[in-house]
Amino acid sequence: MSKLVSMGQNAKEASYELGISSTKEKDTALIFMAEELIKAKEDIVKANEIDLEAARIKGTSEAMLDRLALNYERIESMADGLKDVVKLQDPIGEVISMWQRPNGLQIGQKRVPLGVIGIIYEARPNVTCDAAGLCLKTGNAVILRGGSEAINSNKAVVNALVKGIERAGLPKGCVQLVEDTTREVATEMMKLNEFIDVLIPRGGAGLIQSVLKNATVPVIETGTGNCHIYVDEDCDFEMAKNIAVNAKASRPSVCNAAEKLLVNEKIANIFLPIVVKELRENGVAVRGDEAAQAIIDDLEKTNEEDWGKEYLDYIMAVKIVKDVDEAINHINKYGTGHSEAIITESYKNSQKFLQKVDAAAVYVNASTRFTDGSEFGFGAEIGISTQKLHARGPMGLKELTTIKYIIYGNGQIR
Amino acid sequence: MSKLVSMGQNAKEASYELGISSTKEKDTALIFMAEELIKAKEDIVKANEIDLEAARIKGTSEAMLDRLALNYERIESMADGLKDVVKLQDPIGEVISMWQRPNGLQIGQKRVPLGVIGIIYEARPNVTCDAAGLCLKTGNAVILRGGSEAINSNKAVVNALVKGIERAGLPKGCVQLVEDTTREVATEMMKLNEFIDVLIPRGGAGLIQSVLKNATVPVIETGTGNCHIYVDEDCDFEMAKNIAVNAKASRPSVCNAAEKLLVNEKIANIFLPIVVKELRENGVAVRGDEAAQAIIDDLEKTNEEDWGKEYLDYIMAVKIVKDVDEAINHINKYGTGHSEAIITESYKNSQKFLQKVDAAAVYVNASTRFTDGSEFGFGAEIGISTQKLHARGPMGLKELTTIKYIIYGNGQIR
Repeated sequence: MSKLVSMGQNAKEASYELGISSTKEKDTALIFMAEELIKAKEDIVKANEIDLEAARIKGTSEAMLDRLALNYERIESMADGLKDVVKLQDPIGEVISMWQRPNGLQIGQKRVPLGVIGIIYEARPNVTCDAAGLCLKTGNAVILRGGSEAINSNKAVVNALVKGIERAGLPKGCVQLVEDTTREVATEMMKLNEFIDVLIPRGGAGLIQSVLKNATVPVIETGTGNCHIYVDEDCDFEMAKNIAVNAKASRPSVCNAAEKLLVNEKIANIFLPIVVKELRENGVAVRGDEAAQAIIDDLEKTNEEDWGKEYLDYIMAVKIVKDVDEAINHINKYGTGHSEAIITESYKNSQKFLQKVDAAAVYVNASTRFTDGSEFGFGAEIGISTQKLHARGPMGLKELTTIKYIIYGNGQIR
Repeated sequence: MSKLVSMGQNAKEASYELGISSTKEKDTALIFMAEELIKAKEDIVKANEIDLEAARIKGTSEAMLDRLALNYERIESMADGLKDVVKLQDPIGEVISMWQRPNGLQIGQKRVPLGVIGIIYEARPNVTCDAAGLCLKTGNAVILRGGSEAINSNKAVVNALVKGIERAGLPKGCVQLVEDTTREVATEMMKLNEFIDVLIPRGGAGLIQSVLKNATVPVIETGTGNCHIYVDEDCDFEMAKNIAVNAKASRPSVCNAAEKLLVNEKIANIFLPIVVKELRENGVAVRGDEAAQAIIDDLEKTNEEDWGKEYLDYIMAVKIVKDVDEAINHINKYGTGHSEAIITESYKNSQKFLQKVDAAAVYVNASTRFTDGSEFGFGAEIGISTQKLHARGPMGLKELTTIKYIIYGNGQIR
């Protein structure tokens, strides 16, 4: 039996026990996990230094090193994150609805944990702690497979978390880390249907595509965001400018940042110079199609490839469109189904956009940057789903659950 | 561009139009589809005869030939099925909840179609019509890929359905049939992520496993049912006997039929002879483990393989268990997560069973045969999900939908 299969068995067994634990038991475990994390902060930082040193030798970029780095402050913030999860309402056990059939059967839909969740992610060790906390609160055992760059940090973090879990009297199989970070083991994990109920990849497009392509375990696709802001003919230019700049420049590296600006041709002459100036002042390199270049001649030219791209950088491409219909068609053709916004004063066009755009989150007169678990009021988030099955948009605690039909009879046969 | 890609594009385009059609438009289409089906009944029967003749030459079993056969009565029943779908409530457009954030953003969860659904199924041409009707009502375009055995029947059925769809003014891309029934095209369909949102396989375990293994499109796994009846120590023997016999013998070929009977050792001596006699009188060949054989010596012996098997036949295997805990562990180890029942008068054991058994439908004192869309009151059913993602148990119209966040702002930036 492979190591992973034995981890799968442990997780499955732990999930049965964890799945019927009370909210109080789970919350106690979360508090103990936070405490153990703080107690272990020296060990964690030491382990993290080994990872950082290895990464430096490999010539890792400063931005990546920063993502990987842990210090006391960051560890404390991880621990605070666990304590925040305690405050969230436990979704497990809720009977969403119950009805009686003519034959007297009472049929109820009860919210239960998914069971065992697999998470495959990259170099950020804080994901280890966040994911473990959210899975534990929702009664799910979790198998974590982080990137090789963070393996020592992840081991130290999981070590501490498991101490807290055991101290609370829950099985240590609730949170497990795959220590063998080879590709082969990751692929094995993607096919572990017998033990893993759901797989959530978190990371760049390459990782997600690889999981989608190889997994036989059901996957929730997260995160790719080629988001658009469409500026309609009749709109408040100041609002449109502020939203476009915020959606692009407030944090270009995240999936809810806008990558494309679609501008109605009837206002392009006036609006484009205003918005491009402000974007440039915020450090954004603006690209444009021919029509946009005809208005601002020093825009870098776009090509067909631009329209499907997620830059995740200080780059924004502008396209001039005839009307709201062309904007909607363009978005449905090139978008990734993440977050899309229209800036308009037209009631008709706002309703058309909301109805016809096929995306997880569709905005009228607001920045796409709000597509986020906390901003939506979910308290926490395990990722943003861009697929339509099971969960769409920010995934909070409820999205880590499934239902089970419970049926009370008194001898009914069919 | 392959034929399938062009079908995918047609489906995607049709789905945008169908997805925002009113309930009235969709219901009109369903009625016209039913009418066209009746009008075409001679053509359909002729086409079906070609399929039947080819199947006979191949030496197909009588049971399979019966599944494949269409006559006027069956076509009328398909048409009636479409008219029944008209009566069901349209789930699309419902705003499930809407809330306001402190910054004034109004965030709503709106129920919308999945988009394009792919259905891969075997030799029953009535699935063609049922699936088309349910998808149309829920605003989803559908790409149907039936078995090669039924290709002529399916073509004739889809022909008629599309006439009805076009007469109602909806695009013909709403319902399309993959006419090339080679394995290569099926595999291409399983990877058509750009155009197909969800894939639902309907058929035997071989088909479902092949789809799970090859698909990159999100899949809803349906149908395998290794269901158990556990007869607890303290129970009404008459009820237990009736439920066991009903769950096995009322229709052994369906997924909600029970395959295994677990009997508490404290009552096995008395109960087993009663139930085995009745099962045998209903044509069931009963197998048993050693402990069961010690009570009834002419039971065929079970081996380890039996416990994981879905017989779909007049066969039932009996295992004697120590208590409810052993029953639960056995079910969670060997079950397929479909339907499981306990027969008991013990409040404690009923609650334990409901809570700990990990399956789509868990019953107290009722037959597993009720796991069915109509029996649950959903009116219709596209299949029974045995996975935990998105849908679990009988899938009605709601399970063919997803949600979209609609967000009303007035200039909010982050």
